[in-house]
Amino acid sequence: MASPRHPFDPLTAKEIQLAADILICRYSADTVIFRVITLWEPLKAAMIPFLDMEHEGKQTPTPPPRLAKVQAHVDNTFFEFKVDLGRQSVVSEERLDGRHSHIDSDYTRKAEVACMADPRVKEQVAALNLPEGATVVVEPWTYGPDGMNDMSKRMTMCWFYMRLSDDPDANYYAYPLDLCVEMSEELKVVNIFHLPSGDHDRIKTEGKPQKFDRRKIHEGSEYYPTLNTEHRTTTKPYHVSQPEGPSFSIEGNKISWEKWTMRVGFNYREGMTLHDVRFDNRSLFYRLSLAEMFVPYGDPRTPYPRKAAFDLGNDGAGLCANNLQLGCDCLGHIKYYDGWLSTRAGTPLKMPNVICCHEIDDGILWKHTNFRTGRAAVTRSRVLVLQTVITASNYEYIFLFYFSQDASLHYEVRATGILSTAPINLPPTTTTTTTTTPPPSHGTVVAPGVLAPYHQHLFSLRIDPAIDGHANSLLVEESHPLPLHSPTTPNPHGVGYTTTQTYIAHETGLDLDHRVNRVFKIVNESVRHPTARAPVGVRLLPCYSQMLLAHPSSLHAKRSEFAAHAVWVTRYDDAELFPAGRFTMQSPGGEGIASWIEGRRKGRKGRGDGDGDGDGDGDGESGVRNRDIVIWHTFGSTHNPRAEDWPVMPVEKMIVGLKPVNFFERNPALDVAPSTQERNLSVLVEDGDGQGEKGCCEGVESVDM
Amino acid sequence: MASPRHPFDPLTAKEIQLAADILICRYSADTVIFRVITLWEPLKAAMIPFLDMEHEGKQTPTPPPRLAKVQAHVDNTFFEFKVDLGRQSVVSEERLDGRHSHIDSDYTRKAEVACMADPRVKEQVAALNLPEGATVVVEPWTYGPDGMNDMSKRMTMCWFYMRLSDDPDANYYAYPLDLCVEMSEELKVVNIFHLPSGDHDRIKTEGKPQKFDRRKIHEGSEYYPTLNTEHRTTTKPYHVSQPEGPSFSIEGNKISWEKWTMRVGFNYREGMTLHDVRFDNRSLFYRLSLAEMFVPYGDPRTPYPRKAAFDLGNDGAGLCANNLQLGCDCLGHIKYYDGWLSTRAGTPLKMPNVICCHEIDDGILWKHTNFRTGRAAVTRSRVLVLQTVITASNYEYIFLFYFSQDASLHYEVRATGILSTAPINLPPTTTTTTTTTPPPSHGTVVAPGVLAPYHQHLFSLRIDPAIDGHANSLLVEESHPLPLHSPTTPNPHGVGYTTTQTYIAHETGLDLDHRVNRVFKIVNESVRHPTARAPVGVRLLPCYSQMLLAHPSSLHAKRSEFAAHAVWVTRYDDAELFPAGRFTMQSPGGEGIASWIEGRRKGRKGRGDGDGDGDGDGDGESGVRNRDIVIWHTFGSTHNPRAEDWPVMPVEKMIVGLKPVNFFERNPALDVAPSTQERNLSVLVEDGDGQGEKGCCEGVESVDM
Repeated sequence: MASPRHPFDPLTAKEIQLAADILICRYSADTVIFRVITLWEPLKAAMIPFLDMEHEGKQTPTPPPRLAKVQAHVDNTFFEFKVDLGRQSVVSEERLDGRHSHIDSDYTRKAEVACMADPRVKEQVAALNLPEGATVVVEPWTYGPDGMNDMSKRMTMCWFYMRLSDDPDANYYAYPLDLCVEMSEELKVVNIFHLPSGDHDRIKTEGKPQKFDRRKIHEGSEYYPTLNTEHRTTTKPYHVSQPEGPSFSIEGNKISWEKWTMRVGFNYREGMTLHDVRFDNRSLFYRLSLAEMFVPYGDPRTPYPRKAAFDLGNDGAGLCANNLQLGCDCLGHIKYYDGWLSTRAGTPLKMPNVICCHEIDDGILWKHTNFRTGRAAVTRSRVLVLQTVITASNYEYIFLFYFSQDASLHYEVRATGILSTAPINLPPTTTTTTTTTPPPSHGTVVAPGVLAPYHQHLFSLRIDPAIDGHANSLLVEESHPLPLHSPTTPNPHGVGYTTTQTYIAHETGLDLDHRVNRVFKIVNESVRHPTARAPVGVRLLPCYSQMLLAHPSSLHAKRSEFAAHAVWVTRYDDAELFPAGRFTMQSPGGEGIASWIEGRRKGRKGRGDGDGDGDGDGDGESGVRNRDIVIWHTFGSTHNPRAEDWPVMPVEKMIVGLKPVNFFERNPALDVAPSTQERNLSVLVEDGDGQGEKGCCEGVESVDM
Repeated sequence: MASPRHPFDPLTAKEIQLAADILICRYSADTVIFRVITLWEPLKAAMIPFLDMEHEGKQTPTPPPRLAKVQAHVDNTFFEFKVDLGRQSVVSEERLDGRHSHIDSDYTRKAEVACMADPRVKEQVAALNLPEGATVVVEPWTYGPDGMNDMSKRMTMCWFYMRLSDDPDANYYAYPLDLCVEMSEELKVVNIFHLPSGDHDRIKTEGKPQKFDRRKIHEGSEYYPTLNTEHRTTTKPYHVSQPEGPSFSIEGNKISWEKWTMRVGFNYREGMTLHDVRFDNRSLFYRLSLAEMFVPYGDPRTPYPRKAAFDLGNDGAGLCANNLQLGCDCLGHIKYYDGWLSTRAGTPLKMPNVICCHEIDDGILWKHTNFRTGRAAVTRSRVLVLQTVITASNYEYIFLFYFSQDASLHYEVRATGILSTAPINLPPTTTTTTTTTPPPSHGTVVAPGVLAPYHQHLFSLRIDPAIDGHANSLLVEESHPLPLHSPTTPNPHGVGYTTTQTYIAHETGLDLDHRVNRVFKIVNESVRHPTARAPVGVRLLPCYSQMLLAHPSSLHAKRSEFAAHAVWVTRYDDAELFPAGRFTMQSPGGEGIASWIEGRRKGRKGRGDGDGDGDGDGDGESGVRNRDIVIWHTFGSTHNPRAEDWPVMPVEKMIVGLKPVNFFERNPALDVAPSTQERNLSVLVEDGDGQGEKGCCEGVESVDM
């Protein structure tokens, strides 16, 4: 990647090296272990005039200082540094006592080795009485606090599996074992758990594990092509060709496509981010990103409550990003973006092909046939796709932005990969097994002895709007029937309805309600559509999802505050990017979006104009009307697995949309050229099926209704 | 189309002619006006053994008698005949006094002409004081009963528009006029309405219309390519090629694709239907169809409550089906199906290309990367698409079935076309118009003087399941937190949850609730998954939608009973295909799905075993557990238009899914071959952007977390 052209561009390899060198120079290479070297994104206050000048195009704006965010352990103390790359100096530092960095594969690998080397563990493994040739595989997981430990110390939960094949790509999740070991920061065995393997039994930390039941050995759980070799041959090749090339153009991280412009970012935590998203050079979003996700498991029995992953905050969507392969992960004419991370030594680390960009055809975009003339006008929908895929241990998430020619965009998550599994005893052998033994209460048995536990996936999409400017509001619109009998609004036939509009005044979390067609619009109240007279805006097309099932008093709930409501609105703050808090690893909770809101609501009273924020408008620090605001959408799935999700899960799609509403004067895709066979070169499939007979009624031209 | 191969095949041209000839022979060509000649689908009781034998493949089953359903006016009396085409005789006839057939374009055209010729109408048009060169266009609509007329007589509502261009494809909906004329069965003017054109004014049927306000003349409302000639040129060509042809194979109306088999049907009312849908030769659905749709408008002021269209029951999705064009409506390798209807004289009428069938690529189907080996397995998703498009006056609906390799299917409706418009006065001219005049309460002003009224689109998808057989049940599953303190179920950390299962016992209508993750499963209780121990089934992925806003006491509600609940379950009845009743044109209501249920619930007591159905199980005629049942999903949109929906609306998508749940032993797409560049031949887009620099950190192979 060349030198950065734009303040939103991620750090280049050279900048990463420079940031590391500045710290190494300050301390020494021996004492610093780098955890993060990433762009410290410029303050929005600095970027607004920059972007205004940039888009006016009159003069070249001066970029704000180029800063790096560096998280590192210095002599075992965890710090965050702000490094000015231009001045080559550390601007500020924050000591992060009691905080944990994202997952440390070095520590994790050591924990895995230490676990396996421990004599007590060896004894336990021996007691499992595994089949000959079995290879034990330990899957270290981050620790989801359950209140039973001092959370200031890192811990790792080692879950045990085995594979019966020599092939390291054999699916070891098919053989979950009755063993789980808790490892300490100091790589010591703290606890050995045997797993609740019946439906209602309790935790046992004493004694021996259950011996491996050989009746659990089965076939059909392999997914890897060399191990699962029966492939259907019916799927014929399908090629996309674009003889004139793609419709997008690329200048560094800026993508221009069909009136859209945007800048692509990438960092270790959020993975792909989008900046300064515009259509027809009108501003829509300052920044779009997946801000967090939480995956709590629903089995209440110890140690399962410790399975609760923040895949962004703990693992990092950038760190886990796949190297996407041409023709495999993406089809057509593909532009790839690489990402840059860093090693523990501060060396730049290339992540090749972490984002792919290409076009797809999406069927009909708009059509009308004039029934009086019989003439049709039809356009096809072309869509720009930006895709990234992450692997979080067993599981995969595919994250996609889709941009449409009508100025709508969609964000899609596809969940795939392999379910995290737990051992379960086989049902008693009787001739009427299916009726006498009920299915378990907290999961689905997907193969003999393999329980796929219930869990939730809860995502937070952060929408930082800039709807024709930065002073925006959240408008909640509902559709309600008119009263049957009203002196002011006649409704004699009982068929009338109207909409109600409510502007949200203060920061809060809100819920969806399709029963009243509740619609969330992000609007600019000071700009109105010329005929509709409504404020220009963008409508959220939410993904209807169940919110967090864990009790509000639980650690899960306190740690994932965003998961309590579907739509949140907050006042913009440069520091508020992560709705479960900056540090989620073994976090104690109470640092997320609800806490920010609560803090501003009740804190800092009695200053300035009496509402706390000193700006004289009386709406307090939590006022969100005509303000720079952020909208956060929580969505996901309560994933009670199906047998069909095993051994590898066909994608489950979750889709969120953002659609202009009274923003453009008219259909912004009105100018898309009509669809013609001359351009589209499609092929007629003949089936040789009675074609000759078709002529018998030709000449009848119009349908008689 | 050749002679039918299968009992589900639609009538051929020859069969249509034969059915007509049988009636003409019985009466005379002069006295019979044909309205419908379509397949009388065989009774399910006859088809079950036929299909069983067919799929066993051991012997050729004897098809049930080939029957035609003929609706015709004989000497002005409306009849439905059942005609046996083999025996060439009328099997039964039903006199349909008081019923109206679907829309009659012959009558409609005459009403339009008579309306324009009426001296009072001419006087009214003159009083509109239209600009020179204006062409008045009358849009006849079916009459949505508002209780103010004798519904036994056909009526037509003529809505007035004009176009200012000589081009007949100019968008006359851009100039709605202050006039609406009610025409009688006898082609007489019954009422002349002037329209409520302010926001809160009342109906006027006396005096003169408002003069056309010349300030309403505007540009930007044309959609037809020759009238709207500024087309973006940035969209590069995009071709799909399948060098080995498509992956589907066609035998008449049977489509086989990627383990799916199904039979495509087509009729005047429902348009596309699907029959005997199987995956891997296991039965999933007996029949799938869009059964009805209702489009009520929300403005309570007369005559707007008369705008309430049943686009299937009144207009007919088959009758309104578009002739789909290669490379325009469909892209890639396309198989088209023609449909056959009939003229008033009973002559077969070909509807060319009413259904297209092709494949699309749908991104990643499943993926997993083993983080220990770094090896990824990834497959791409191929999807089979069946599409039909209908034009209902101003509006278009695109109906699509998508079949996936993982045995899921999706049904999508795309709404497009032109909004039905109404006149509205321009706001008072002031410098602060936007703040002093609020937007109207029942619509959106999309162009000067053009109101796009609020309305709803409510669809009913009829799902006639055959999940491994015909005795099926509806299971409602919800996810609920475990209690915090329970003596039987420990939940010490407050994170546990479980599912509840409720089998629906009797016919009923049910609602969605994402808050409890309410899931509707259609299951076969007698077949269980070998390890999951749950009954095999299919899960409905509903489209979350507001139900009918009109009051339950309204004619709208009585006429569209299905629109009250999102999910209905009924006992199968061959005669129950249409959830708003067999005849929706000017229907009085009370003949739909709720009435069927109510009738069976309280009717016919005291026979047989005491529960009314004489089968000795005591669950009554309304029992739906382990029965042949039908599931109906009501979904749609409360469409409060956006300015962006004008002058032609970008598609609004509504999607419903059906997904196997514990039906297959494992992922039914596990055998899809891995995705490779060798087969997919994608193209790398180079951007000449610092590529040379990329090598600087090559050699670093794995990410250090």
